[in-house]
Formats: sequence, C-alpha cells, structure tokens
Amino acid sequence: MKHLLAINDLTRADLEGLLDLSEDFVAITQREIPKVPALRGKVVVSLFYEDSTRTRISFETAAKRLSCDVMAFTVGSSSVSKGESLRDTVQTIAAMGIDAVVVRHRAAGTPHRIASWIDASIVNAGDGRHEHPTQALLDALTLRHHRGRDLDGLQVAIVGDIRHSRVARSNVAALTMLGADVTLVAPMTLLPESLEGWPVRVTNDLDSILPDLDVVYLLRIQQERLTEALFPSLREYTARWGLTVERAGRLRPDALVMHPGPMNRGVEIAAEVAEAPSSAIREQVTNGVAVRMAVLYTILGSGAPVAA
Amino acid sequence: MKHLLAINDLTRADLEGLLDLSEDFVAITQREIPKVPALRGKVVVSLFYEDSTRTRISFETAAKRLSCDVMAFTVGSSSVSKGESLRDTVQTIAAMGIDAVVVRHRAAGTPHRIASWIDASIVNAGDGRHEHPTQALLDALTLRHHRGRDLDGLQVAIVGDIRHSRVARSNVAALTMLGADVTLVAPMTLLPESLEGWPVRVTNDLDSILPDLDVVYLLRIQQERLTEALFPSLREYTARWGLTVERAGRLRPDALVMHPGPMNRGVEIAAEVAEAPSSAIREQVTNGVAVRMAVLYTILGSGAPVAA
Amino acid sequence: MKHLLAINDLTRADLEGLLDLSEDFVAITQREIPKVPALRGKVVVSLFYEDSTRTRISFETAAKRLSCDVMAFTVGSSSVSKGESLRDTVQTIAAMGIDAVVVRHRAAGTPHRIASWIDASIVNAGDGRHEHPTQALLDALTLRHHRGRDLDGLQVAIVGDIRHSRVARSNVAALTMLGADVTLVAPMTLLPESLEGWPVRVTNDLDSILPDLDVVYLLRIQQERLTEALFPSLREYTARWGLTVERAGRLRPDALVMHPGPMNRGVEIAAEVAEAPSSAIREQVTNGVAVRMAVLYTILGSGAPVAA
Repeated sequence: MKHLLAINDLTRADLEGLLDLSEDFVAITQREIPKVPALRGKVVVSLFYEDSTRTRISFETAAKRLSCDVMAFTVGSSSVSKGESLRDTVQTIAAMGIDAVVVRHRAAGTPHRIASWIDASIVNAGDGRHEHPTQALLDALTLRHHRGRDLDGLQVAIVGDIRHSRVARSNVAALTMLGADVTLVAPMTLLPESLEGWPVRVTNDLDSILPDLDVVYLLRIQQERLTEALFPSLREYTARWGLTVERAGRLRPDALVMHPGPMNRGVEIAAEVAEAPSSAIREQVTNGVAVRMAVLYTILGSGAPVAA
Repeated sequence: MKHLLAINDLTRADLEGLLDLSEDFVAITQREIPKVPALRGKVVVSLFYEDSTRTRISFETAAKRLSCDVMAFTVGSSSVSKGESLRDTVQTIAAMGIDAVVVRHRAAGTPHRIASWIDASIVNAGDGRHEHPTQALLDALTLRHHRGRDLDGLQVAIVGDIRHSRVARSNVAALTMLGADVTLVAPMTLLPESLEGWPVRVTNDLDSILPDLDVVYLLRIQQERLTEALFPSLREYTARWGLTVERAGRLRPDALVMHPGPMNRGVEIAAEVAEAPSSAIREQVTNGVAVRMAVLYTILGSGAPVAA
Repeated sequence: MKHLLAINDLTRADLEGLLDLSEDFVAITQREIPKVPALRGKVVVSLFYEDSTRTRISFETAAKRLSCDVMAFTVGSSSVSKGESLRDTVQTIAAMGIDAVVVRHRAAGTPHRIASWIDASIVNAGDGRHEHPTQALLDALTLRHHRGRDLDGLQVAIVGDIRHSRVARSNVAALTMLGADVTLVAPMTLLPESLEGWPVRVTNDLDSILPDLDVVYLLRIQQERLTEALFPSLREYTARWGLTVERAGRLRPDALVMHPGPMNRGVEIAAEVAEAPSSAIREQVTNGVAVRMAVLYTILGSGAPVAA
C-alpha cells in the first residue's frame, strides 16, 4: 500500500488490516512514553489547502509519535500566492526528498492527481465532497471497540448533510464493507442528487428508525447551507433531525452517538447528548491519532511488525 | 503540581523550588548539547489566542530542549473560524493525548476554565489583565542571579501601565512572596481601580524614590492607551515616568533595569539605558527558557531529579 | 566560517569545500534513514519577512536531517505587528539561546546587519536584490554533478530579469569563481543600471549564443515587471527570451536547462522544456537540501568530519 486516497480503493482485508494495526497503536499511545522510532528520518509534510487544525494536529501528532520529522505547508504563506501551480508545489516538495504528503483540498480528486505527479506517498485528509478515509477508519475503530470485530448487521444511521459530506461517503464505504447496514437520514435537499450504487437505505424520518439503531452518526450542519436555503431554519432542522435529549431517550440503552466534529451544539446534537455516556465523540478523536499512525506506518514502514 | 495558572496559587516553597530547578536548567542550557531526554514522547501544544511570538518561541524552545514534541495551534487557522467553542477545541486537543497546553488568551481566567474541562496540564502564558506567571518566575530568577537567593527588603519599583498589566500582577505576587518591597509608580489613570489587598506602596512620583531603588521594572506603554486618553501624550509620559538617560544617572550604581519586552525605546525607556550594563533585559529573555523548562519538567516529569 | 551572508565573502577554497561537503550530504540523504545526529540540540530559527515556503521548507528539512530543533518565526504573527524593531526581534531570539537564524528579507544587507547585532550564526536566505548564496551553491552542485568538479570554460547564459535578481548576482559570483564563463541575456530594461565589475559578457540576443551554451539558466519573470512596463508583453518576452521548444531544439544535445523556481510555464520556459531530460530543475531542488545541510553543518558543527 503506497497511498491512502479513498476507502473505495481498499479491500475488506486491507481495511481490517489497518484496523488491527490501529489497535496496536492504541496500546502504544497508552504507554508512559507513547512514541516509537519506527519512522525515524522519514519526512511528512502536511499540505492543507482548507482550514482544519483538528485533522492537521491529529496527523502531526501521529507522525511525531512514529518519530517522523513533520513540516506544515500552510497555504496562505506558500508560493501559491505567487501563482505557482499545485503541480509545481508538490513536485518541488517531492524533489526535497519528502516521504509522504498529507493533503486536504476543496477539490475532489486532488490527492489522486498529486499521486500521479510525484513519487512520495499521498494520504487524503479530505478532498471536496469525495472522501475522508482516515475519518472512516477512526469511526470503524471506535465501533469495533464497542461492538467487537464483527459489525455484521449493525444498524447505523448517518444523519444530516449527506450531500456535501465526504465523511458520509467514506463511512458508507467502510461500514458497509465491514457488514453494517447503513441508513442515510436527511431532508431531501441534503441528499445527493443520485444515490445509485450507494449500498444504503434512505429516509427523511429519523423518528421512525430511532428505536432500531445501534449507532446514530450525526453530521455537522454548516451555516452556509442555511443561506443556500437548503432547509427552512436551524430551529426546524433541529426539530426534525437534531439528536435532542428527548430523541436520545428513545434510543436503545446501548446505542452509540457519534459525530466527526466540530459540533454545532444545540443544532444537530444537544449539548447534554454530546456529553452523555452513550457518546463516543471524544473516543473518536483519540482513535484518530492511532489510525493515522497505522496509515503512516503501513505506507512508509518497512512492513515489519511494530517494534516494541 | 499539575498546572501553573497563577503565582497566587503557589506557596513560597513552590516558588523557590521552581527557581532552584530553573537554575539547574540554566546550567543545562549552557552545555554543548543543551538538551535532555527528560520528557521524550510528551506532547505540548501552544494555544495562543493572542499574538506573542516571543513567549511562544520561548516555551517551544524550552519544550524541545526537554525532548517534547511540540505543536502550535494558531488561532487564525483553527476551527475557531468555524465557530467551534473554546471548550470543544481544548477537549479535542486533550482527546488526542496531548500532555500539556500552553495558553495565551485575552480573557482573564481562561486557563483556569480550560483546566476544569480537560485532563492535560495547563500552563498560563498570559490571561487578560490577570496573570503571566512564567514572566514573574523569570524575573525572580534574574534578580536571584544578581542579588542572591535572599530578596528580603529589596526595593523594587514597577513603573507604567499597572492597570492593564498581568505582568505587574504576577510580579507583585512573586516578588512580595520572596520578601521584596514593591512600589508601583504610575499616573493615577494607569493604576488599578482598587489596590485593596495589594501588598505594595503606590506613588506617581518616580523621581522621589529613584535614589533608593535596587530595581526599576518598566512596563510597556501600549499605543492604544494613548487613544483612550489615559495620559496626555507619549512625550509627557516620558517626561514624568520614562527611564531617560538623565534619570538612569540618578540610580544607585548597582541598580538593575528590567523590562518584559517588547520595548518602546524612547518612550518608557531610553535606547541607551536598555543597552547599558545595568540592564538585565536580555538576561530576562535568556532566563525565560530555563524557567519554562522548569515549569514543564515539574508538571510533566516523573518527579525524579533532572538526569544528566 | 560563522555566517553565510554572500558568495562574495567566500574564497574559491571555501566554495569548493562547501560543495565537497554537500556531496557527502547528497549521499546521506539517499540512505534508508537520511538523518544524522550531527547537530543534536542546536536550535535553528527561520525568520522569513518575505513569502518563500519553498526555501523555508528546504532549510527546515536540512536542519531536521541534521537533528536540529527548528522553529519558524513567521512575520504576520510576530511582535513586528506590535511595532517591535527588527533589532529587538533578533536580539530577543538570540537571547533565547538560538544557534542560527536563517533570514529572508526584502532589504539588501539585512542579514549583515543582523550578524552585527547578535552572536548567533546568520544564513542569508535571500536579501532584496543582493544575494541568495545557497541558491548559487545548489546550482553549482548541480553543474558539478553533470560536468565534474572542473567548470573551467563552461559556457553559461543567465537569461531574464537580471536587474531585480539576487539569484543572478549570487550565481555570477559563484560560477565565475569556479571558472565558468557567464553571459547575461536580457532586454536592456532588465539589466542592472551598471555592470561595472561584473565579470560577465552581456547580450540581448539569446538566439545568437544558443548553439554555444553548456547551460541555459532561466530567471522567473515577475508579473509586477509587466505593470512597470519594463517590457511590452509576456508574449513578446517569450518570443525573444523564452526557452521555447523550438529554441531548446537548437541547444547542444548535452546542454543543461536550469531554473531556480517557481517557474512561469509558457513565459520564460515552455512546459515541455521544463520536463525534458535536459532539464535539471528538479535536481536543483533536491540538491538544495544537501547544500543547506552542508552550510548549517559548517557553521554550527564541531568541524569534525560528518559522522556515519
């Protein structure tokens, strides 16, 4: 495995191998010194053309725990402002001997294009509405921790702005590959134009499926969707699709609540629900570091088992 | 000691312990390889909601000399711009397994609030008008170096914008705890509304106390105070409260001149005075790294003596 | 050697020593773990008052491969915005015990001034129209790789905006010192006001010398030169001085094409020419890291040979 561009490029065995390795790294990050020399001398550059300090810091923490050298290439301060093309930028980075580039870009397919231009390994940290594969991996790892390795038949609802969400696309791909049953829940205006080929059920009625769910996965409502008039008001959104305290009370006692963050408390999720014992939201963030260690180790490592 | 939030939380023994340890780190930073493996694998995040590259670089240098991994979470590029709350931001950072957060924020009390939300150690790098405890520690270390461990009866004047100064508050707390006599010198408009409970003398007449001082500690005059009309003009401020060459000439030969930086040369301090042998201003900066090493080591270390 | 401020400060022996050492570092960067502990504990700060992520990342990669700790002092976020002077900024950095400062500044002579103020080593990463010495070193290293150590009589044309180019100045100094014959090729408006003392030939007729060249070194055309009306149009520039496919076809088969980047493809160089086998442009970038390792090692190291 040279790159991680999309969940859809992986086989079920790839996916399970990455999750197994992630579990090793969860154990390592719980040690007194949560650091291994595995990737000493490797250089990882984070190339974020979109704001996401959360994801960037998670990747950089992962890389440093593997003893990589890490450099941030932030875009405001780059030659981009001199009109340098993306291709020149990444070819220049590659020519410096960088081993991996972690890319976030607003245009779907950018990580694939970069992978075709240069020799370094590319990790997709989110491209447009397309994919965010490490998010899906960390979500699967979190589910495994609560439900065991076998996710067959697990009832998962992904609720919210599916249309604009790379998180939804990557999670549908990963969770269905692992055997879960996924239902998308959204107002019609926030569903993709076509769902052909998506192995999912679709509804706009959250309440009707609530009692049957193992997992409610809430997506962030972006303020800008409101100005696009894709739904009438935040209040109305919350009334029909928000995980309010009342709705959470109708979930099964062992149901899990998940969210990729950052949350709009009081919109797609009530503050109390986010903090309740059924919420796995903090654990998702924690697992993000282990998953990204597993990805970088797989891509840049020698293939040997992780050294103690 | 889990956090360093305020000098006022410390006992005299705490304070002296930190200063003793800082002296060990001064020695370490003068070695050929000024770096120890003490905190290998610990991750420190600097979270600066206010511009201060000086303080940030001092903390980051300290953390790196202790072999920590360091990440900067700068605010322009963070989820803050997506409306994420401070609480979400720090809880997310904490969930990634970060060990310490160094916080600068314009609102007094922010580091305390963060400490109540998460498990990581918090170091206050300046909160509003409240405290800047590592500044007071580095100032005390500088005084110790020149006057020995016993600061009893040392005559210190803190001159300038006391009202808006966290540096003044932390220094009053630290220096009086260590036995020094502190006098605040300022125009009435730059004194706090109430000085009840401050163990200090107050005057607006710098000239009358000048010959008796061991230390003149000058505070930066912010340009914005001028627009608030808190004093008539920079020229008038300098005439009455600036440490001009003429005034410096009336100090005792062994008196020390200090300033937390950055200086307004020609306003609160003459350029020549800042560069004179009686100025300890560069040494304050140098000591800042050792003091911050001592703080991080105390908070994150095993409690064992510093390894050679 | 304490600083690297300008090629013109070096003797031919200095220059050749740096190139020999760079060749050692090229070999090191090709190892499985391209990192040496040579400068462990040294702290390097990059202080860029002009945008250049390419050069900054190259220096930071070099410093990290030598096991330095690296900090970026970016200017937007610095005390500069509080009106702190350059002198205060660098004296503060120096007082923290930083070992070397890599400086990029729009004003010629800034690195020299900084070197006169502080004790740390200074590396000029480009100052105004004056010098960019590591660029010239990496270019010379690239030529050595293709032509061997003896550059005597090598025919080099530097083409483009000589007038505003520090790259041209540093390259003329380095290449002529190493024995090459340099010809400057530009419209009159893009030549310096005086060429007195430059050991070069000058022409504005690229075509006439094309068949005799060993090396064509193209400079970037800045969009702002166009608005200054220093030449009629980009199209006309390309027609007379651009390295088009047609012109490249008239070069000797073993002639090298070089460019310091970032390129304006289609203006000073055709896209196909930039990617052709005769182009050494990527290799220049690669060599940049090795050259900067050699410079930092020379300045900050013990003088011992590079440890395996």
